[in-house]
Amino acid sequence: MSFRIGSGVDFHRLEAGRPFWLGGVQVPHDRGAVGHSDADVLLHAICDAMLGAACLGDIGVHFPDTDAAYKDIDSKVLLRRSRQLIREKGYRVINVDTTLCLQEPKIKSYVPAMQQAIAACLDIGTGDVSVKATTTERLGFVGREEGVIAYATVLLMRDGAESLE
Amino acid sequence: MSFRIGSGVDFHRLEAGRPFWLGGVQVPHDRGAVGHSDADVLLHAICDAMLGAACLGDIGVHFPDTDAAYKDIDSKVLLRRSRQLIREKGYRVINVDTTLCLQEPKIKSYVPAMQQAIAACLDIGTGDVSVKATTTERLGFVGREEGVIAYATVLLMRDGAESLE
Amino acid sequence: MSFRIGSGVDFHRLEAGRPFWLGGVQVPHDRGAVGHSDADVLLHAICDAMLGAACLGDIGVHFPDTDAAYKDIDSKVLLRRSRQLIREKGYRVINVDTTLCLQEPKIKSYVPAMQQAIAACLDIGTGDVSVKATTTERLGFVGREEGVIAYATVLLMRDGAESLE
Repeated sequence: MSFRIGSGVDFHRLEAGRPFWLGGVQVPHDRGAVGHSDADVLLHAICDAMLGAACLGDIGVHFPDTDAAYKDIDSKVLLRRSRQLIREKGYRVINVDTTLCLQEPKIKSYVPAMQQAIAACLDIGTGDVSVKATTTERLGFVGREEGVIAYATVLLMRDGAESLE
Repeated sequence: MSFRIGSGVDFHRLEAGRPFWLGGVQVPHDRGAVGHSDADVLLHAICDAMLGAACLGDIGVHFPDTDAAYKDIDSKVLLRRSRQLIREKGYRVINVDTTLCLQEPKIKSYVPAMQQAIAACLDIGTGDVSVKATTTERLGFVGREEGVIAYATVLLMRDGAESLE
Repeated sequence: MSFRIGSGVDFHRLEAGRPFWLGGVQVPHDRGAVGHSDADVLLHAICDAMLGAACLGDIGVHFPDTDAAYKDIDSKVLLRRSRQLIREKGYRVINVDTTLCLQEPKIKSYVPAMQQAIAACLDIGTGDVSVKATTTERLGFVGREEGVIAYATVLLMRDGAESLE
């Protein structure tokens, strides 16, 4: 039995009038995150944590923001590809824990939909996907609503004993 | 055997003349953290990491800062309740590792008391509770002593095979 | 079998004309990190994560920046000592996952050399050492190139069953 841990952190700017994708869900708000893809900071942090745990580089290596193929892409596609990449190395996700740092809006009512979207991409149960949130108490660029941060931690297990080793 | 990992991050503002609770210990300082509860940033990060690992929501869901019941509450109460919540799902804490990001004061001499306070709430040994600290080298809101950040990581194990399943 | 997790975070200021050590490698850049040692933010975060997982204090306790012995020291020495400290408690590193938060330069081409340097210090394979990077999208002190942050997560296993227990 073989475990691995990984962690990811991602940052995006916020701008008025942009759609705000968080955890695979569009959250109604007067501003949203800016990026080459749909700028889903939470899914990006999870991708990075998974790739890091499996020692497969990072999201910028696999899905470069200079590649037109990823322009405005749904980050759920990136999350599913990340899952496929770790699967090819014999790993599966045991659990994912995440924290969104953002001043506004309250995301509590969207958490179940986020858990469902993430779990579907990773082919695990919603009981293995945690989405937490905190403000920064108006401190720093998150507090000024200039940006948003997401942290993710994952535990992987290599279950390939029978099939891959 | 079933492991789970979780991570938490918490932020609090600092203000002159407030008591400064960190890791269950009151640290003498000319300023302290502001919050609805006793604003113990370290204990809050640990609560969040434990709740996240067990996929039980976050500290804001369980102990909302709009609830008068938690006004000025000792965060050790919240930590013990978090432990009870994960225990009800069959989990116990293997180890906790934390980092406090603050410019002042040096907390080294308070670390053993913090470890003891946390270990007592979690019913584990002090050798399974780590409290680290770093400044931000005077960078950002932590460096300007406007705020403090705490990070926590926990490993849980489900030991409920015999008693709960 | 006994697992432990740890996490570390470190911050350093950037200044023009300083050598920029990252992950044991000197990265060509017009500025570099300031510190008492060689200011290798990535190696410091890994040291802290290892020490934290083994509940051995933090990098400031073991290698204080007030001690002349550590002035300008190669942080690979600190990483090797951290490995020795956890080894004495019967632990070894299963995997390390890290994220560098810096605006410039792109470090992708230096990652293999960083993995090699870290793996050599820890006596593990490069396939168990992950180095990821992200900008902060020009947000905060990292975005203004005033500073750099590194996050590290480690999984340790106690393999001392035969020799230590």
